[in-house]
Amino acid sequence: MITSRVWQAFFLVTALGAPSLVAQTVPEPGGLRSQVRAWRTAHEKEIVRALVDLTALPNVAVHRDDIERNADHLIALFRQRGIEARKLTAGEAPPAVYGELRVPGATRTVVFYAHYDGQPADPADWGGADPWTPVLRTGPLSAGGREVDLATAPALDPEWRLYARSASDDKGPIIALLAALDALRAAGVTPSVNLKFFLEGEEEAGSPHLADLLSAHRDLLAADAWLLCDGPVHPSRRMQVVFGARGVSSLEVTVYGPLRALHSGHYGNWAPNPAALLVELLAGLRAPDGSIRIPGFSDAVRPLTDSEIRAAADLPAVEPALQEELGLAWTEGNGARLQDLVMRPALNLRGLAAAGVGEKARNAISTEARASIDFRLVPDQTPATVRETLEAHLRRQGFWVVHEEPDLETRRAHARIVRLDWESGYPGVRTSMDLPVSRAVLQAVGEAADGPLFRVPMLGGSIPISLFTEVLGAPTIIVPIVNHDNNQHAAHENLRLQNLWDGIEVYAQLFARLGQVWP
Amino acid sequence: MITSRVWQAFFLVTALGAPSLVAQTVPEPGGLRSQVRAWRTAHEKEIVRALVDLTALPNVAVHRDDIERNADHLIALFRQRGIEARKLTAGEAPPAVYGELRVPGATRTVVFYAHYDGQPADPADWGGADPWTPVLRTGPLSAGGREVDLATAPALDPEWRLYARSASDDKGPIIALLAALDALRAAGVTPSVNLKFFLEGEEEAGSPHLADLLSAHRDLLAADAWLLCDGPVHPSRRMQVVFGARGVSSLEVTVYGPLRALHSGHYGNWAPNPAALLVELLAGLRAPDGSIRIPGFSDAVRPLTDSEIRAAADLPAVEPALQEELGLAWTEGNGARLQDLVMRPALNLRGLAAAGVGEKARNAISTEARASIDFRLVPDQTPATVRETLEAHLRRQGFWVVHEEPDLETRRAHARIVRLDWESGYPGVRTSMDLPVSRAVLQAVGEAADGPLFRVPMLGGSIPISLFTEVLGAPTIIVPIVNHDNNQHAAHENLRLQNLWDGIEVYAQLFARLGQVWP
Repeated sequence: MITSRVWQAFFLVTALGAPSLVAQTVPEPGGLRSQVRAWRTAHEKEIVRALVDLTALPNVAVHRDDIERNADHLIALFRQRGIEARKLTAGEAPPAVYGELRVPGATRTVVFYAHYDGQPADPADWGGADPWTPVLRTGPLSAGGREVDLATAPALDPEWRLYARSASDDKGPIIALLAALDALRAAGVTPSVNLKFFLEGEEEAGSPHLADLLSAHRDLLAADAWLLCDGPVHPSRRMQVVFGARGVSSLEVTVYGPLRALHSGHYGNWAPNPAALLVELLAGLRAPDGSIRIPGFSDAVRPLTDSEIRAAADLPAVEPALQEELGLAWTEGNGARLQDLVMRPALNLRGLAAAGVGEKARNAISTEARASIDFRLVPDQTPATVRETLEAHLRRQGFWVVHEEPDLETRRAHARIVRLDWESGYPGVRTSMDLPVSRAVLQAVGEAADGPLFRVPMLGGSIPISLFTEVLGAPTIIVPIVNHDNNQHAAHENLRLQNLWDGIEVYAQLFARLGQVWP
Repeated sequence: MITSRVWQAFFLVTALGAPSLVAQTVPEPGGLRSQVRAWRTAHEKEIVRALVDLTALPNVAVHRDDIERNADHLIALFRQRGIEARKLTAGEAPPAVYGELRVPGATRTVVFYAHYDGQPADPADWGGADPWTPVLRTGPLSAGGREVDLATAPALDPEWRLYARSASDDKGPIIALLAALDALRAAGVTPSVNLKFFLEGEEEAGSPHLADLLSAHRDLLAADAWLLCDGPVHPSRRMQVVFGARGVSSLEVTVYGPLRALHSGHYGNWAPNPAALLVELLAGLRAPDGSIRIPGFSDAVRPLTDSEIRAAADLPAVEPALQEELGLAWTEGNGARLQDLVMRPALNLRGLAAAGVGEKARNAISTEARASIDFRLVPDQTPATVRETLEAHLRRQGFWVVHEEPDLETRRAHARIVRLDWESGYPGVRTSMDLPVSRAVLQAVGEAADGPLFRVPMLGGSIPISLFTEVLGAPTIIVPIVNHDNNQHAAHENLRLQNLWDGIEVYAQLFARLGQVWP
């Protein structure tokens, strides 16, 4: 067990006074919020500087040296706060960073999860800028936000944004957790539950080793609940608590034409055109309205409960503003609402490639055509059932399914060959909103939030939540803090400062109040 | 009128003897062929060197300086042979190179057409080699053909190949025409028809100015027939005479998603996925068997005549060997023969692009998706009818068709926007095989060919033949000489030397015999 000497000393002092004394050190909820806010206001540049330093570290999971540098940096941040921390490893896995703070008298233990790796990013897509050179701007780049210098700015406007890969996904929440610890300590407030921190290093790579990590450190990671600090707040900018997330599974599809590119005039209509074959294959998987055409694909989908349907219905309409912002005269799903649609399984066609278009187009039949797909899964679908139903569907349609590059013999023997390369994925999760821990989290976050708190049965994005339940048996709940328009996974990812400030208050409130309001 | 002083002097001498003398200077067909072959055998390196020098000149039509350099080089080649030549221009058109040789006593005039521009080429696709640095190889690159030095090789094997952009398409035939002139002169043989040469400079760009050029120089280009020196010989390697070619029309298709890329988890199923929309659009145009799904698209297709059907049926089966070579267990067209299929209209999906695949894939909904299409047209389809039927089809399917980048207002107002960018094209042609000139060409080429000559009603590839008939009223016939496996329009384009040798004999025979056997 890791227990900080500094915090240990603090707890020893406060613990002397027994329960009543502990109660005295915890101010009223509104008072705590004011104290945290006052501390934050006095330390804003310091907090943003910490995020700048962290996002300046390249963090694509496949680059192991980069990942180790991130982990070392995070361990140092914990240690600066008197919290001992270390790397957790399992086989070839990039390390997770683990920290723990045991609170004398606390009867519950909560793990706060975040991830420090990020999506790959191409400077060409970022207007030539390095995605790991953080830039502070006076607003969204798309609205003309201009660059400002953190060091010389007289004060920070909460509408300013920090642009960098992982500013929002998911390093911003890590900095908010650390700042919340600092704010509580400054206020002299004891956490109400034992705190554990688990920061994953390959979430954006699909968490291929997360199950191994959780299994290998099962005892260390034992807890009454996992709170996941990832994903964006509601598009209305209100705080939300999320009780699930879609799972994910990824697939690369390759179909084949002639062994060498052929003149489309002399061989067109005779030599199989792989782009045309791919188009037919893909059109057989998914309709433009988003509905999935693979028989049996949705058989395992668990119906929504009445309370989940009601919670979704309570969410405000964000669609008209989003459509305006995104230049969309239509949406998929035949008019259904965004929240309802992200509680269904999805097939996203994320990329297509065959020969060239525009100036790179040639009058030729290409040798192959490729597509990249990500599936979003809902309970009780699994990557295995997705794979099985899709492959059975393609075989029924006359495709010859292989899982590696077909050799000449295979190509001469089989028509309509399709190569499928599956990436590891995980299923979706919905935690019941009626569990005691669910109610406690709703209350604590509600105390920190301005205005109504939204209850979201399920987030559209994917977080490997299922494993916490599968491996550790712990319920999981998501408490996101970052802005919805953060360009997550795309170019120009950013974090709005007000979201960072709100996140600090939410996490501080959870640390301080969770154990008190847990039934 | 351009008449070479050298040839003029030659004709003056021979013309003195009246018809009987002219007849005496023309040897028997077999004798002429032997003389041409003997001359070629003695000048092989010189001929290949001329092709090396010509293919060393970059020749993509959009690069005007390069094109002018090619034209100047060709004019010098004509002048070296005592044939005056000049550039023909019309407005912004890249120049055509024109040469003429008037034969005293000849009653017919024939224009020999070729083009000196080439397809764009990316060194990355050529294994890093410059496509305009010609390389002589001992055989096909795919069969391990190794590089040989033209200067030091003791003799040239006819199976060797010259690798370079335009080696076959279409600079090889130009060198064969020039060598045929040299061989005839060496044999002391007078052409039997007035000769005109028209070398186009933007065929691979779709010949956008050819109509203007032909119209502007209508009187200069008047002729009894046009013989087109382009395209490959029959895949069996036999010589063939081709009486038509498919037309072509090209199209770039762009469909749109959200204005910025969105996380596929948080917005998947709601934000329109442009790749999915594109796939549905394309699947509605063409089936994997090559059949076209656009209603009305084939209404204007003229049925084949009985003689065309018979000529096609006389062609040998090349399909099994081609399938073996290309690693194909199936073909489009539901088992129909290659020749029958290329006499039908075709829709070739030449390129697809949307975000990234493989390592470049991101879990995002992209902002747009693109496809590039080339249509192959047969009589009496026109680019205009293709455009009309396709756009009407898309509109019926609910697409909003635009022809430029849609602005924000347009995107907010219209669902399923598709941008269509059409490139100029031209219709297909089939010249009757029963015209007097058709019979004369078949006889002359037959005299030069080893073994049976194939009569092809229509070539699958496109050459802008229709304009010669439309603008000049002249019948057109194609006499191709290059190898079918020349990688035309793709990487590693090449010309087999035996095809160059054969071409010289065929063109020399046409020069010498056409006027004699023309009924």
